[in-house]
Amino acid sequence: MPVSQLAQLIQTLRYLPGVGPRSAERLAYYLLQHRERSLHLAQTLASALNTIQTCETCHHYTESIRCEHCRNPQRDKSLLCIVESPHDLLAIEQSQAYQGQYYVLHGKISPLDGIGPQELKLHQLVDRVQQANLSEIIFALSPTVEGQTTLHCIQSLLSPFPLRLSQLAQGIPQGSDLSALDSYTISNALTHRSAI
Amino acid sequence: MPVSQLAQLIQTLRYLPGVGPRSAERLAYYLLQHRERSLHLAQTLASALNTIQTCETCHHYTESIRCEHCRNPQRDKSLLCIVESPHDLLAIEQSQAYQGQYYVLHGKISPLDGIGPQELKLHQLVDRVQQANLSEIIFALSPTVEGQTTLHCIQSLLSPFPLRLSQLAQGIPQGSDLSALDSYTISNALTHRSAI
Repeated sequence: MPVSQLAQLIQTLRYLPGVGPRSAERLAYYLLQHRERSLHLAQTLASALNTIQTCETCHHYTESIRCEHCRNPQRDKSLLCIVESPHDLLAIEQSQAYQGQYYVLHGKISPLDGIGPQELKLHQLVDRVQQANLSEIIFALSPTVEGQTTLHCIQSLLSPFPLRLSQLAQGIPQGSDLSALDSYTISNALTHRSAI
Repeated sequence: MPVSQLAQLIQTLRYLPGVGPRSAERLAYYLLQHRERSLHLAQTLASALNTIQTCETCHHYTESIRCEHCRNPQRDKSLLCIVESPHDLLAIEQSQAYQGQYYVLHGKISPLDGIGPQELKLHQLVDRVQQANLSEIIFALSPTVEGQTTLHCIQSLLSPFPLRLSQLAQGIPQGSDLSALDSYTISNALTHRSAI
């Protein structure tokens, strides 16, 4: 018996993050119930996937060859911020605290998932550093084992270049509840405590 | 400035149930990161919306003119079960405790949402009851104010017909924790207690 379209839809919805068999079923029925909106969603998704490419300079998502940040002449060309994903880049942009250039890795070194320096195309980063006139590279990688491994790997690749390397400050986040934070964050914040 | 494809995608993803601005953003980046799967999802959704229609007899989802239950000669033609949605129908089918016919309302009477007897096309239900040779109608509607209002409305429309009308038993669900159940369910279960 051929698999029905409904069963196929339910199966495909399970690709989405956090969607198990029951919620895929619920979602499929919801989508069929709201046909017009769902068709619009299918079309918007297909069109976005067709149009959105990665910037040839920084690998951020863009609809042109180069992204808006790389094209913007107002941005500081001497600063380069390395992020793991376009979503992380957006979070930094939303903070309005950075006016330099970016480089998006699209991942982090994770041997268990088969992601090494080759998969992250780190040689392209080295090429870019070689060609650009940079004074500082800021690592905005996640404070996890994989993030720190990625940082150390890039650091050793960039050691021939006379550059200032920095990373985001680690500590207690704004508005947090001390009792709810993990011990590692608190011990880290104590070690790097700042004068008042 | 025209709205970017990414912003449009994020906006459209907010149609999904339980997806707020932050999760729409996260979902959009996830979809762009997994291009192949996402394109497959867009195509499967569009194709399902094109192919899946409602059965002309019972209004359940089907890829033909009549659904598998209406076409199945093994099913008891003297029993009709009224459900609010195709998803509820599926839940009953999965229980394997019912072998009769169905009628899907695609909603329930809810004056606040502008859904009255006209919107539910109840005259089609009356036509069907008139034409079919039924002995019993089972109401499998939700035990809420809207569900019960819908039941009473259909009951009065069907009063000219000599039929047995029944509804799903209400009580404490299998495997439930009494202390976590609402008072209405417990009081209902006490009222309708059964002999051992």
